[in-house]
Amino acid sequence: MDHLKKYITEINDYPKKGIVFKDLNPIYKEPKIWKELMFPLQNLISTKKPDYIAGIESRGFISASALAFKLEIGLITIRKPNKLPGEVIGTNYKLEYGEDRLEIQQNIMEKDSKIMLFDDLLATGGTAGAAGNLIKKAGGNLIGYAFLVELTELKGRENLDSNLFVETLIKY
Amino acid sequence: MDHLKKYITEINDYPKKGIVFKDLNPIYKEPKIWKELMFPLQNLISTKKPDYIAGIESRGFISASALAFKLEIGLITIRKPNKLPGEVIGTNYKLEYGEDRLEIQQNIMEKDSKIMLFDDLLATGGTAGAAGNLIKKAGGNLIGYAFLVELTELKGRENLDSNLFVETLIKY
Repeated sequence: MDHLKKYITEINDYPKKGIVFKDLNPIYKEPKIWKELMFPLQNLISTKKPDYIAGIESRGFISASALAFKLEIGLITIRKPNKLPGEVIGTNYKLEYGEDRLEIQQNIMEKDSKIMLFDDLLATGGTAGAAGNLIKKAGGNLIGYAFLVELTELKGRENLDSNLFVETLIKY
Repeated sequence: MDHLKKYITEINDYPKKGIVFKDLNPIYKEPKIWKELMFPLQNLISTKKPDYIAGIESRGFISASALAFKLEIGLITIRKPNKLPGEVIGTNYKLEYGEDRLEIQQNIMEKDSKIMLFDDLLATGGTAGAAGNLIKKAGGNLIGYAFLVELTELKGRENLDSNLFVETLIKY
């Protein structure tokens, strides 16, 4: 998939100094490229047969919902604090500076539903790790993680459950 | 589409007192229901042939990207302030209390590209109206607006360009 890197814009020092941001918007606006990129995830879903794809707000929603709708699998949203109505289950997790929180609706899925977690990018794994723990806390059977892009030097996989699959399509 | 209202959870006094929030998450987790709901929008897109669907962060991303990916049309993201990297064009708009801002990437599309704007819900039309103006400001040819749900008593259509189509699937 490395030949698709030319469609990913790199922005230096965004959102803060020292970070080279990977902008996937140029892929989303090119349907053929987006489709080509997502093809391995379609295969993965056909093989693993999750009951739901869980997408992390808000960039994660984009391809999570695209996959879910195309493959006719349910989508579950994992959101930032106070964004989901009704009873929620939350988890706090550490960032480089400070703390953040993710929430999921308490009764959105039946117990032991097979969930594939999706986000656009695997960096430190802090957010994805927390989201995975949240799915388990909510009674879901987390079966694995999928990302479009992985920043390998940040070793994000170390923050994920090592018993589960981790699929990333483009590695930096 | 009124028979699908049973899949929309109504939450009283969320996000604040007096508002009855419409939660579409129960639809997204049921692929057959989601597909049925979206069917008229697929037809609309086939008829109007937009170059891009523009989705508004973050609930708007969900069905905007689902439609875009399924129908192989480009997706453009309209986001909250400081979320899009690179050069952006922004617009401020008034809320009931205070002000908010939306941004789009400056060179994400060619001039005069045909854009269909999408959000999950049409309430006062403040956000969608601002997003439409933003698309025009960025050089896009806004052709119309599409929403899953409309809260008709809030008269949101009055804040939209009356020369363009406004499609809403479920009306309250």
